Amino acid sequence: MAHTPTIEVCFSPQLSGFVATQGEALVVVVDILRATTSIVSALAHGAEAVIPVSSLEEAKAFKEQGCLVAAERDGKIVDFADFGNSAFEFMQDEVKNKTLVFSTTNGTVAVETAKAMGTVLIGAFSNISPLAKWIAAKDRQVIILCSGWKNTFCLEDTIFAGALTEKLLEIGQYRINCDSAHAALDLWHTARHDPAGYVEKALHRKRLRELGADDVLGFSFTADTCPTVPLLVGGKLVDALKQTDQNIQL
Amino acid sequence: MAHTPTIEVCFSPQLSGFVATQGEALVVVVDILRATTSIVSALAHGAEAVIPVSSLEEAKAFKEQGCLVAAERDGKIVDFADFGNSAFEFMQDEVKNKTLVFSTTNGTVAVETAKAMGTVLIGAFSNISPLAKWIAAKDRQVIILCSGWKNTFCLEDTIFAGALTEKLLEIGQYRINCDSAHAALDLWHTARHDPAGYVEKALHRKRLRELGADDVLGFSFTADTCPTVPLLVGGKLVDALKQTDQNIQL
Repeated sequence: MAHTPTIEVCFSPQLSGFVATQGEALVVVVDILRATTSIVSALAHGAEAVIPVSSLEEAKAFKEQGCLVAAERDGKIVDFADFGNSAFEFMQDEVKNKTLVFSTTNGTVAVETAKAMGTVLIGAFSNISPLAKWIAAKDRQVIILCSGWKNTFCLEDTIFAGALTEKLLEIGQYRINCDSAHAALDLWHTARHDPAGYVEKALHRKRLRELGADDVLGFSFTADTCPTVPLLVGGKLVDALKQTDQNIQL
Repeated sequence: MAHTPTIEVCFSPQLSGFVATQGEALVVVVDILRATTSIVSALAHGAEAVIPVSSLEEAKAFKEQGCLVAAERDGKIVDFADFGNSAFEFMQDEVKNKTLVFSTTNGTVAVETAKAMGTVLIGAFSNISPLAKWIAAKDRQVIILCSGWKNTFCLEDTIFAGALTEKLLEIGQYRINCDSAHAALDLWHTARHDPAGYVEKALHRKRLRELGADDVLGFSFTADTCPTVPLLVGGKLVDALKQTDQNIQL
Protein backbone atom coordinates (compact mmCIF):
# COMPACT_ATOMS: atom_id res chain seq x y z
CA MET A 1 0.00 0.00 0.00
CA ALA A 2 1.57 3.28 -1.13
CA HIS A 3 -0.47 5.43 1.21
CA THR A 4 0.83 5.49 4.78
CA PRO A 5 -1.55 7.00 7.31
CA THR A 6 -0.11 9.54 9.74
CA ILE A 7 -0.20 9.89 13.51
CA GLU A 8 -0.79 13.35 14.97
CA VAL A 9 -0.83 14.33 18.63
CA CYS A 10 -2.78 17.39 19.71
CA PHE A 11 -1.84 18.73 23.17
CA SER A 12 -5.01 20.70 23.81
CA PRO A 13 -8.56 20.89 22.43
CA GLN A 14 -7.70 24.55 21.85
CA LEU A 15 -5.18 23.50 19.17
CA SER A 16 -7.51 21.07 17.40
CA GLY A 17 -8.24 23.53 14.59
CA PHE A 18 -4.58 23.43 13.54
CA VAL A 19 -4.31 19.67 13.06
CA ALA A 20 -4.01 18.74 9.40
CA THR A 21 -6.67 16.09 8.82
CA GLN A 22 -6.53 13.67 5.92
CA GLY A 23 -9.83 12.09 5.04
CA GLU A 24 -11.70 10.34 7.81
CA ALA A 25 -9.52 10.27 10.89
CA LEU A 26 -9.75 8.15 14.03
CA VAL A 27 -9.59 10.52 16.99
CA VAL A 28 -8.48 9.07 20.33
CA VAL A 29 -9.58 11.24 23.26
CA VAL A 30 -7.29 11.03 26.29
CA ASP A 31 -7.89 12.25 29.84
CA ILE A 32 -5.86 9.85 31.96
CA LEU A 33 -6.68 11.60 35.26
CA ARG A 34 -9.44 10.65 35.02
CA ALA A 35 -12.36 10.76 32.55
CA THR A 36 -11.14 8.36 29.89
CA THR A 37 -9.74 5.88 32.42
CA SER A 38 -13.18 5.91 34.07
CA ILE A 39 -15.13 5.51 30.84
CA VAL A 40 -12.98 2.51 29.88
CA SER A 41 -13.64 1.01 33.34
CA ALA A 42 -17.38 1.49 33.09
CA LEU A 43 -17.62 -0.27 29.72
CA ALA A 44 -15.23 -3.01 30.82
CA HIS A 45 -17.40 -3.68 33.86
CA GLY A 46 -20.56 -4.16 31.90
CA ALA A 47 -22.06 -0.73 31.31
CA GLU A 48 -23.98 -0.87 28.05
CA ALA A 49 -23.08 2.64 26.97
CA VAL A 50 -21.68 5.93 28.22
CA ILE A 51 -23.20 9.19 27.00
CA PRO A 52 -20.64 11.99 27.24
CA VAL A 53 -22.15 15.43 27.78
CA SER A 54 -20.24 18.71 28.08
CA SER A 55 -22.50 20.73 30.35
CA LEU A 56 -23.83 20.05 33.82
CA GLU A 57 -27.24 21.25 32.62
CA GLU A 58 -27.41 18.34 30.17
CA ALA A 59 -26.19 15.93 32.84
CA LYS A 60 -28.89 17.16 35.23
CA ALA A 61 -31.59 16.78 32.59
CA PHE A 62 -30.55 13.13 32.09
CA LYS A 63 -30.57 12.63 35.87
CA GLU A 64 -34.14 13.92 36.05
CA GLN A 65 -35.08 11.33 33.43
CA GLY A 66 -33.77 8.63 35.78
CA CYS A 67 -30.31 8.04 34.28
CA LEU A 68 -27.23 7.22 36.30
CA VAL A 69 -24.97 10.25 36.15
CA ALA A 70 -21.23 10.64 36.70
CA ALA A 71 -20.24 14.28 36.95
CA GLU A 72 -17.16 16.06 38.23
CA ARG A 73 -15.90 19.60 38.14
CA ASP A 74 -12.40 20.62 39.25
CA GLY A 75 -11.85 17.07 40.52
CA LYS A 76 -14.90 17.06 42.84
CA ILE A 77 -18.15 15.10 42.45
CA VAL A 78 -21.10 17.32 41.50
CA ASP A 79 -23.92 17.37 44.11
CA PHE A 80 -26.66 15.74 42.00
CA ALA A 81 -24.43 13.00 40.54
CA ASP A 82 -24.41 9.28 41.38
CA PHE A 83 -20.70 8.94 40.68
CA GLY A 84 -17.65 11.21 40.57
CA ASN A 85 -14.77 10.46 38.29
CA SER A 86 -12.68 7.69 39.82
CA ALA A 87 -12.30 4.54 37.73
CA PHE A 88 -12.91 2.43 40.85
CA GLU A 89 -16.46 3.76 41.22
CA PHE A 90 -17.43 2.07 37.99
CA MET A 91 -16.15 -1.39 38.86
CA GLN A 92 -19.36 -2.53 40.48
CA ASP A 93 -22.57 -4.32 39.61
CA GLU A 94 -24.52 -1.08 39.77
CA VAL A 95 -23.27 -0.10 36.29
CA LYS A 96 -23.93 -3.46 34.65
CA ASN A 97 -26.13 -3.18 31.55
CA LYS A 98 -26.79 0.46 32.40
CA THR A 99 -26.32 3.57 30.32
CA LEU A 100 -24.27 6.16 32.19
CA VAL A 101 -24.22 9.88 31.52
CA PHE A 102 -20.78 11.34 31.98
CA SER A 103 -19.62 14.94 32.35
CA THR A 104 -16.17 16.03 33.57
CA THR A 105 -14.04 19.18 33.62
CA ASN A 106 -11.83 18.31 30.68
CA GLY A 107 -12.55 14.90 29.21
CA THR A 108 -16.08 15.25 27.93
CA VAL A 109 -15.32 18.68 26.51
CA ALA A 110 -12.52 17.06 24.50
CA VAL A 111 -15.03 14.47 23.20
CA GLU A 112 -17.13 17.33 21.80
CA THR A 113 -14.05 18.75 20.06
CA ALA A 114 -13.09 15.32 18.73
CA LYS A 115 -16.52 14.78 17.12
CA ALA A 116 -15.74 17.53 14.63
CA MET A 117 -12.44 15.86 13.68
CA GLY A 118 -13.46 12.29 12.92
CA THR A 119 -14.52 9.01 14.49
CA VAL A 120 -14.16 9.22 18.28
CA LEU A 121 -12.42 6.57 20.39
CA ILE A 122 -11.50 6.65 24.08
CA GLY A 123 -7.96 5.87 25.19
CA ALA A 124 -6.40 5.05 28.56
CA PHE A 125 -3.47 2.95 29.73
CA SER A 126 -6.05 0.39 30.86
CA ASN A 127 -7.09 -0.33 27.25
CA ILE A 128 -3.98 0.68 25.31
CA SER A 129 -3.21 -2.66 23.59
CA PRO A 130 -6.71 -3.62 22.41
CA LEU A 131 -7.20 0.00 21.33
CA ALA A 132 -3.97 0.04 19.30
CA LYS A 133 -4.82 -3.32 17.75
CA TRP A 134 -8.33 -2.15 16.77
CA ILE A 135 -6.96 1.07 15.28
CA ALA A 136 -4.11 -0.60 13.39
CA ALA A 137 -6.61 -2.86 11.63
CA LYS A 138 -8.09 0.25 9.97
CA ASP A 139 -6.27 2.26 7.32
CA ARG A 140 -6.84 5.69 8.82
CA GLN A 141 -5.02 8.75 10.06
CA VAL A 142 -4.85 8.69 13.87
CA ILE A 143 -5.22 11.89 15.91
CA ILE A 144 -4.50 11.55 19.63
CA LEU A 145 -6.33 14.41 21.34
CA CYS A 146 -5.10 15.20 24.84
CA SER A 147 -7.74 16.80 27.03
CA GLY A 148 -5.16 18.68 29.07
CA TRP A 149 -6.19 20.73 32.07
CA LYS A 150 -8.53 23.56 31.11
CA ASN A 151 -6.97 23.78 27.67
CA THR A 152 -3.34 23.69 28.81
CA PHE A 153 -0.75 20.99 28.14
CA CYS A 154 -0.59 18.16 30.72
CA LEU A 155 2.04 15.51 31.27
CA GLU A 156 -0.15 12.48 31.99
CA ASP A 157 -2.11 12.71 28.73
CA THR A 158 1.09 13.40 26.80
CA ILE A 159 2.97 10.32 27.99
CA PHE A 160 -0.07 8.22 27.11
CA ALA A 161 -0.03 9.78 23.63
CA GLY A 162 3.62 8.76 23.38
CA ALA A 163 2.91 5.22 24.55
CA LEU A 164 0.07 4.80 22.05
CA THR A 165 2.19 6.26 19.25
CA GLU A 166 4.93 3.76 20.04
CA LYS A 167 2.48 0.87 20.00
CA LEU A 168 0.93 1.97 16.70
CA LEU A 169 4.37 2.30 15.07
CA GLU A 170 5.21 -1.21 16.29
CA ILE A 171 2.10 -2.98 15.05
CA GLY A 172 0.91 -0.83 12.14
CA GLN A 173 2.09 1.09 9.10
CA TYR A 174 2.23 4.72 10.16
CA ARG A 175 4.40 7.76 9.88
CA ILE A 176 4.65 10.61 12.35
CA ASN A 177 3.57 13.91 10.86
CA CYS A 178 3.93 16.43 13.68
CA ASP A 179 6.46 17.59 16.23
CA SER A 180 3.98 16.92 19.06
CA ALA A 181 4.03 13.19 18.32
CA HIS A 182 7.85 13.16 18.38
CA ALA A 183 7.81 15.04 21.70
CA ALA A 184 5.18 12.73 23.21
CA LEU A 185 7.21 9.70 22.17
CA ASP A 186 10.41 11.11 23.72
CA LEU A 187 8.61 12.04 26.94
CA TRP A 188 7.14 8.53 27.07
CA HIS A 189 10.65 7.10 26.75
CA THR A 190 11.69 9.24 29.73
CA ALA A 191 8.63 8.20 31.75
CA ARG A 192 8.07 4.59 30.75
CA HIS A 193 9.95 2.83 33.55
CA ASP A 194 7.79 4.51 36.18
CA PRO A 195 4.96 6.52 34.61
CA ALA A 196 3.09 7.08 37.90
CA GLY A 197 6.33 8.29 39.48
CA TYR A 198 7.06 10.50 36.47
CA VAL A 199 3.79 12.38 36.78
CA GLU A 200 4.43 13.13 40.45
CA LYS A 201 5.58 16.53 39.18
CA ALA A 202 2.42 17.05 37.14
CA LEU A 203 0.18 19.86 38.30
CA HIS A 204 -3.00 17.82 38.02
CA ARG A 205 -1.41 15.13 40.16
CA LYS A 206 -1.01 17.79 42.86
CA ARG A 207 -4.64 18.82 42.43
CA LEU A 208 -5.80 15.24 42.98
CA ARG A 209 -3.58 14.85 46.01
CA GLU A 210 -5.03 18.01 47.51
CA LEU A 211 -8.53 16.61 46.94
CA GLY A 212 -7.57 13.32 48.58
CA ALA A 213 -8.33 11.59 45.27
CA ASP A 214 -5.17 9.56 44.97
CA ASP A 215 -6.75 6.13 45.13
CA VAL A 216 -6.77 5.41 41.44
CA LEU A 217 -3.34 6.67 40.46
CA GLY A 218 -1.53 3.34 40.16
CA PHE A 219 -4.46 1.87 38.22
CA SER A 220 -4.47 4.84 35.82
CA PHE A 221 -0.95 4.03 34.67
CA THR A 222 -1.31 0.24 34.50
CA ALA A 223 -1.59 -1.15 31.00
CA ASP A 224 -4.26 -3.50 29.72
CA THR A 225 -6.55 -4.15 32.65
CA CYS A 226 -9.66 -3.53 30.51
CA PRO A 227 -10.19 -5.30 27.16
CA THR A 228 -12.48 -2.56 25.86
CA VAL A 229 -12.44 -0.12 22.93
CA PRO A 230 -14.93 2.69 23.55
CA LEU A 231 -16.24 4.04 20.25
CA LEU A 232 -18.71 6.87 19.80
CA VAL A 233 -21.71 5.65 17.79
CA GLY A 234 -24.78 7.89 17.54
CA GLY A 235 -23.78 9.99 20.54
CA LYS A 236 -23.09 6.98 22.78
CA LEU A 237 -19.80 5.38 23.67
CA VAL A 238 -20.06 1.62 23.25
CA ASP A 239 -17.48 -1.15 23.28
CA ALA A 240 -16.38 -1.60 19.67
CA LEU A 241 -15.21 -5.13 20.49
CA LYS A 242 -18.81 -6.15 21.24
CA GLN A 243 -20.29 -4.66 18.08
CA THR A 244 -20.79 -6.37 14.79
CA ASP A 245 -19.21 -4.55 11.86
CA GLN A 246 -22.67 -3.77 10.56
CA ASN A 247 -23.40 -1.73 13.67
CA ILE A 248 -20.35 0.43 13.22
CA GLN A 249 -20.49 3.15 10.59
CA LEU A 250 -16.99 4.61 10.63
CA MET B 1 12.28 36.53 50.17
CA ALA B 2 9.17 34.40 50.66
CA HIS B 3 7.85 35.04 47.17
CA THR B 4 9.38 32.79 44.52
CA PRO B 5 8.58 33.79 40.95
CA THR B 6 7.42 31.03 38.61
CA ILE B 7 8.50 29.88 35.17
CA GLU B 8 5.81 29.02 32.65
CA VAL B 9 6.28 27.67 29.15
CA CYS B 10 3.59 28.28 26.54
CA PHE B 11 3.82 26.02 23.48
CA SER B 12 1.76 28.17 21.12
CA PRO B 13 0.52 31.77 20.93
CA GLN B 14 -2.90 30.12 20.67
CA LEU B 15 -2.57 28.92 24.29
CA SER B 16 -1.39 32.26 25.69
CA GLY B 17 -4.81 33.08 27.13
CA PHE B 18 -4.55 30.08 29.47
CA VAL B 19 -1.24 31.02 31.12
CA ALA B 20 -1.74 32.09 34.72
CA THR B 21 0.05 35.44 35.00
CA GLN B 22 1.19 36.86 38.32
CA GLY B 23 1.79 40.59 38.31
CA GLU B 24 4.13 41.96 35.68
CA ALA B 25 5.69 39.06 33.83
CA LEU B 26 8.77 38.93 31.63
CA VAL B 27 7.77 37.23 28.38
CA VAL B 28 10.53 35.63 26.31
CA VAL B 29 9.49 35.15 22.69
CA VAL B 30 11.18 32.21 20.95
CA ASP B 31 11.32 31.36 17.26
CA ILE B 32 14.62 29.55 16.87
CA LEU B 33 14.16 28.83 13.16
CA ARG B 34 14.52 31.72 12.60
CA ALA B 35 13.01 35.07 13.63
CA THR B 36 14.37 35.40 17.14
CA THR B 37 17.82 34.07 16.19
CA SER B 38 17.88 36.71 13.42
CA ILE B 39 16.70 39.58 15.65
CA VAL B 40 19.41 38.73 18.20
CA SER B 41 21.98 38.72 15.37
CA ALA B 42 20.88 42.09 14.02
CA LEU B 43 21.17 43.80 17.41
CA ALA B 44 24.46 42.07 18.18
CA HIS B 45 25.87 43.32 14.88
CA GLY B 46 25.09 46.93 15.54
CA ALA B 47 21.49 47.51 14.47
CA GLU B 48 20.07 50.26 16.65
CA ALA B 49 16.60 48.78 16.88
CA VAL B 50 14.30 46.21 15.34
CA ILE B 51 10.63 47.03 14.87
CA PRO B 52 8.56 43.84 14.77
CA VAL B 53 5.38 44.10 12.71
CA SER B 54 2.81 41.35 12.17
CA SER B 55 1.47 42.17 8.73
CA LEU B 56 3.20 42.54 5.40
CA GLU B 57 1.12 45.69 4.81
CA GLU B 58 2.83 47.39 7.75
CA ALA B 59 6.22 46.15 6.59
CA LYS B 60 5.56 47.56 3.11
CA ALA B 61 4.50 50.92 4.53
CA PHE B 62 7.79 51.14 6.45
CA LYS B 63 9.68 50.18 3.29
CA GLU B 64 8.00 53.02 1.39
CA GLN B 65 9.24 55.38 4.12
CA GLY B 66 12.79 54.26 3.36
CA CYS B 67 13.31 51.71 6.15
CA LEU B 68 15.30 48.52 5.78
CA VAL B 69 12.83 45.65 5.85
CA ALA B 70 13.29 41.97 6.67
CA ALA B 71 10.21 39.98 5.74
CA GLU B 72 9.57 36.28 5.25
CA ARG B 73 6.48 34.15 4.75
CA ASP B 74 6.54 30.35 4.78
CA GLY B 75 10.34 30.47 4.93
CA LYS B 76 10.73 32.56 1.76
CA ILE B 77 11.87 36.19 1.46
CA VAL B 78 9.03 38.54 0.49
CA ASP B 79 9.51 40.33 -2.86
CA PHE B 80 9.77 43.90 -1.57
CA ALA B 81 12.07 43.07 1.39
CA ASP B 82 15.80 43.85 1.78
CA PHE B 83 16.41 40.76 3.88
CA GLY B 84 14.80 37.38 4.45
CA ASN B 85 15.06 35.64 7.76
CA SER B 86 18.50 34.05 8.05
CA ALA B 87 20.64 35.19 10.98
CA PHE B 88 23.64 35.42 8.64
CA GLU B 89 22.02 38.17 6.56
CA PHE B 90 22.18 40.51 9.55
CA MET B 91 25.87 40.07 10.28
CA GLN B 92 27.03 42.82 7.96
CA ASP B 93 27.82 46.52 8.04
CA GLU B 94 24.61 47.33 6.22
CA VAL B 95 22.60 46.95 9.44
CA LYS B 96 24.95 48.99 11.64
CA ASN B 97 23.16 51.85 13.46
CA LYS B 98 20.07 51.16 11.38
CA THR B 99 16.51 50.47 12.46
CA LEU B 100 15.18 47.33 10.82
CA VAL B 101 11.54 46.45 10.31
CA PHE B 102 10.92 42.75 10.76
CA SER B 103 7.96 40.57 9.81
CA THR B 104 7.97 36.76 9.73
CA THR B 105 5.46 33.92 9.55
CA ASN B 106 5.48 33.01 13.22
CA GLY B 107 7.92 35.06 15.26
CA THR B 108 6.56 38.57 14.95
CA VAL B 109 3.01 37.32 15.45
CA ALA B 110 4.19 35.84 18.75
CA VAL B 111 5.66 39.23 19.71
CA GLU B 112 2.19 40.75 19.29
CA THR B 113 0.72 38.07 21.56
CA ALA B 114 3.49 38.56 24.12
CA LYS B 115 2.84 42.31 24.39
CA ALA B 116 -0.49 41.56 26.05
CA MET B 117 1.19 39.31 28.63
CA GLY B 118 4.00 41.49 29.98
CA THR B 119 7.43 42.90 29.15
CA VAL B 120 8.72 41.37 25.92
CA LEU B 121 12.23 39.91 25.51
CA ILE B 122 13.68 37.95 22.61
CA GLY B 123 15.38 34.60 23.21
CA ALA B 124 17.63 32.40 21.08
CA PHE B 125 20.45 29.97 21.80
CA SER B 126 22.80 32.71 20.59
CA ASN B 127 21.95 34.95 23.58
CA ILE B 128 20.78 32.39 26.16
CA SER B 129 23.29 33.15 28.94
CA PRO B 130 23.17 36.97 28.94
CA LEU B 131 19.38 36.72 28.63
CA ALA B 132 19.10 34.36 31.61
CA LYS B 133 21.43 36.56 33.67
CA TRP B 134 19.45 39.70 32.85
CA ILE B 135 16.15 37.99 33.70
CA ALA B 136 17.42 36.44 36.93
CA ALA B 137 18.41 39.90 38.20
CA LYS B 138 14.71 40.86 38.18
CA ASP B 139 12.15 39.42 40.57
CA ARG B 140 9.51 38.53 38.02
CA GLN B 141 7.47 35.63 36.73
CA VAL B 142 8.99 34.35 33.46
CA ILE B 143 6.80 33.19 30.59
CA ILE B 144 8.61 31.52 27.70
CA LEU B 145 6.37 31.87 24.66
CA CYS B 146 7.17 29.48 21.82
CA SER B 147 6.11 30.77 18.42
CA GLY B 148 5.58 27.30 17.05
CA TRP B 149 4.69 26.77 13.42
CA LYS B 150 1.38 28.39 12.53
CA ASN B 151 0.10 27.93 16.08
CA THR B 152 1.20 24.31 16.47
CA PHE B 153 3.82 22.91 18.83
CA CYS B 154 7.39 22.79 17.49
CA LEU B 155 10.44 20.97 18.78
CA GLU B 156 13.13 23.60 18.23
CA ASP B 157 11.39 26.30 20.28
CA THR B 158 10.52 23.76 22.98
CA ILE B 159 14.07 22.56 23.55
CA PHE B 160 15.19 26.18 23.81
CA ALA B 161 12.45 26.75 26.40
CA GLY B 162 13.85 23.78 28.32
CA ALA B 163 17.43 25.07 28.07
CA LEU B 164 16.42 28.53 29.32
CA THR B 165 14.35 27.02 32.14
CA GLU B 166 17.36 24.98 33.21
CA LYS B 167 19.61 28.04 33.19
CA LEU B 168 17.11 30.12 35.17
CA LEU B 169 16.73 27.39 37.80
CA GLU B 170 20.53 27.24 38.11
CA ILE B 171 21.18 30.94 38.54
CA GLY B 172 17.94 32.31 39.98
CA GLN B 173 15.22 31.59 42.51
CA TYR B 174 12.33 30.13 40.57
CA ARG B 175 9.78 27.38 40.74
CA ILE B 176 8.16 25.60 37.81
CA ASN B 177 4.42 26.11 37.72
CA CYS B 178 3.24 24.25 34.65
CA ASP B 179 3.55 20.85 33.01
CA SER B 180 4.84 22.45 29.80
CA ALA B 181 7.97 23.68 31.58
CA HIS B 182 8.61 20.17 32.98
CA ALA B 183 8.15 18.70 29.50
CA ALA B 184 10.41 21.30 27.86
CA LEU B 185 13.10 20.59 30.44
CA ASP B 186 12.89 16.82 29.88
CA LEU B 187 12.99 17.24 26.10
CA TRP B 188 16.01 19.53 26.47
CA HIS B 189 17.73 16.81 28.51
CA THR B 190 17.08 14.39 25.65
CA ALA B 191 18.33 16.87 23.03
CA ARG B 192 21.17 18.69 24.77
CA HIS B 193 24.12 16.63 23.56
CA ASP B 194 23.23 17.35 19.93
CA PRO B 195 20.36 19.85 19.63
CA ALA B 196 20.80 20.40 15.88
CA GLY B 197 20.79 16.63 15.36
CA TYR B 198 17.76 16.25 17.62
CA VAL B 199 15.63 18.62 15.55
CA GLU B 200 16.44 16.72 12.35
CA LYS B 201 13.04 15.10 12.89
CA ALA B 202 11.30 18.46 13.32
CA LEU B 203 8.83 19.37 10.62
CA HIS B 204 10.10 22.92 10.28
CA ARG B 205 13.61 21.58 9.78
CA LYS B 206 12.25 19.67 6.78
CA ARG B 207 10.58 22.83 5.48
CA LEU B 208 13.88 24.73 5.61
CA ARG B 209 15.74 21.90 3.91
CA GLU B 210 13.17 21.88 1.11
CA LEU B 211 13.68 25.63 0.70
CA GLY B 212 17.46 25.21 0.59
CA ALA B 213 17.68 27.38 3.71
CA ASP B 214 19.90 25.15 5.78
CA ASP B 215 22.85 27.50 6.09
CA VAL B 216 22.12 28.81 9.53
CA LEU B 217 21.14 25.61 11.32
CA GLY B 218 24.34 25.00 13.26
CA PHE B 219 24.49 28.64 14.30
CA SER B 220 20.87 28.55 15.50
CA PHE B 221 21.74 25.90 18.09
CA THR B 222 25.09 27.35 19.23
CA ALA B 223 24.98 29.04 22.62
CA ASP B 224 26.21 32.52 23.42
CA THR B 225 27.56 33.91 20.19
CA CYS B 226 25.68 37.20 20.69
CA PRO B 227 25.95 39.18 23.97
CA THR B 228 22.60 40.90 23.41
CA VAL B 229 19.28 41.04 25.28
CA PRO B 230 16.56 42.36 22.95
CA LEU B 231 13.87 44.15 24.95
CA LEU B 232 10.72 45.75 23.57
CA VAL B 233 10.58 49.42 24.56
CA GLY B 234 8.00 51.67 22.93
CA GLY B 235 7.36 49.27 20.06
CA LYS B 236 11.06 48.82 19.26
CA LEU B 237 13.38 46.00 20.22
CA VAL B 238 16.61 47.43 21.60
CA ASP B 239 19.56 45.83 23.37
CA ALA B 240 18.77 46.03 27.10
CA LEU B 241 22.47 45.71 27.86
CA LYS B 242 23.13 49.06 26.14
CA GLN B 243 20.33 50.93 27.90
CA THR B 244 20.58 52.88 31.11
CA ASP B 245 18.03 51.82 33.71
CA GLN B 246 16.28 55.16 33.28
CA ASN B 247 15.49 54.29 29.67
CA ILE B 248 13.84 51.04 30.62
CA GLN B 249 10.35 51.17 32.04
CA LEU B 250 9.60 47.58 32.94
